[in-house]
Amino acid sequence: MKFIDKYHAALSRCNNSKLCIGLDTDANLLPNKFAPDSDSVIEFNKQVIENTYSQCIAYKINFAFYEALGMRGFQAILSAKHYIPEHIISIADAKRGDIGNTSSQYAEAVLGQLDFDSITVAPYMGVDSIKPFFDYKNKSVFVLALTSNLGSNDFQRLLVEGKPMYKIVIEKFLNAFGDGGEIGFVVGATHPEELAEIRELVGMNVPLLIPGVGSQGGSAQETILANKSGVAFVNVSRGICGQTREDDYISVIKSKAEEYSKSLV
Amino acid sequence: MKFIDKYHAALSRCNNSKLCIGLDTDANLLPNKFAPDSDSVIEFNKQVIENTYSQCIAYKINFAFYEALGMRGFQAILSAKHYIPEHIISIADAKRGDIGNTSSQYAEAVLGQLDFDSITVAPYMGVDSIKPFFDYKNKSVFVLALTSNLGSNDFQRLLVEGKPMYKIVIEKFLNAFGDGGEIGFVVGATHPEELAEIRELVGMNVPLLIPGVGSQGGSAQETILANKSGVAFVNVSRGICGQTREDDYISVIKSKAEEYSKSLV
Repeated sequence: MKFIDKYHAALSRCNNSKLCIGLDTDANLLPNKFAPDSDSVIEFNKQVIENTYSQCIAYKINFAFYEALGMRGFQAILSAKHYIPEHIISIADAKRGDIGNTSSQYAEAVLGQLDFDSITVAPYMGVDSIKPFFDYKNKSVFVLALTSNLGSNDFQRLLVEGKPMYKIVIEKFLNAFGDGGEIGFVVGATHPEELAEIRELVGMNVPLLIPGVGSQGGSAQETILANKSGVAFVNVSRGICGQTREDDYISVIKSKAEEYSKSLV
Repeated sequence: MKFIDKYHAALSRCNNSKLCIGLDTDANLLPNKFAPDSDSVIEFNKQVIENTYSQCIAYKINFAFYEALGMRGFQAILSAKHYIPEHIISIADAKRGDIGNTSSQYAEAVLGQLDFDSITVAPYMGVDSIKPFFDYKNKSVFVLALTSNLGSNDFQRLLVEGKPMYKIVIEKFLNAFGDGGEIGFVVGATHPEELAEIRELVGMNVPLLIPGVGSQGGSAQETILANKSGVAFVNVSRGICGQTREDDYISVIKSKAEEYSKSLV
């Protein structure tokens, strides 16, 4: 099934909510009952997925948190991927990108071996550095455009002949890979005005991955308004999974997921 | 020992050669006697290191090739790191970079747990996305500036108020983290003129990681001339390790390493 069809199917099973839940699971910040190790990360993610999958269209796994666990971290990625139901989209938040023969290896690792539905990539090395990710069918690749952090001001907003760099990035990648849903962009929820402009620029069918709602300060309502009816994944990580370390964490996660799910329609 | 002191010590043990050997070990392109698996990658890297360590100041491990091996790939990274002699610099070519709390995890994975001497990072998300890598002592962080591939034309050379993006990247990171050797830049050997300009701009003490000599077409001699006497790691990967699949591969690797080592003084 094409990525975009999987998206629409997931959306209709989820009351049209665009919620993506981020599994940025930090072994040192788990609920108090857990030991700070990879087995706990595996068990916690399983519980999160079991208790939230009816509320979201996607899970985004932030590779950094797993790599910090060493060898067992890879097992924890495999495990989380395994627990995600077949009809829900899996996003590898890995921000990879290198020269062609190296990007081919990253693509094989994440879209081949691990079989994620999509991956985030960094644009700085140019169009040829991202091309190998398109060798895998029914996937989507999210290129960083305007990120949610303060550092997005450093280079992404610099003007090149009057146009901000992030728009040049978007236009160049769209031009290279088309607007059929195989390429999408990362745009932070912390920039609602620019999000609206970007949605205008790319049309409704280009997927946007929108992090930054919740702990980073982005608003769910503003994000939905700015995105209009476009294909989007609005990610919440700590705002759902990192709200308490007490023993009632499951009910907190469940209710936070329901709340965000409703507000992201 | 500070990174820059380790560099000078390695250099003086190596007849002042700036050779860095890239371990971009592809399990499917090993000499014919090897099965295409992670054990073979481990054994091949061990043989490469044992037969070349007197000719180089650093080994650069390209993480993509190991991640493509799945779980056992992590073991292969650990193993290669283990075989690199203590006095030789280890560079994790991983091109990481994300928002602060995520970059902290990447830094812990690579500079903490795996204890590499340095790592390559991508600049697009700005200065705050790289800051966590400086929490580890005696390390150096290489920021992508002007990469060796064709795609370096897409964004890195765009002019912002008359200045190419890669120069803005260099100035911003130098300004944030100083010129004491903790921050360095990746500049492709395929751009010798710009390499000379960049060396002029940053002075002699800022480390440059210079890939692209050999298979990618960069010239050893032009690179050494352009770099002047600056702190540099000139990387050769396939030009040393990927020249033959016949049974005499060890002697080919040895002689290629000697050849490049001499030409990079």
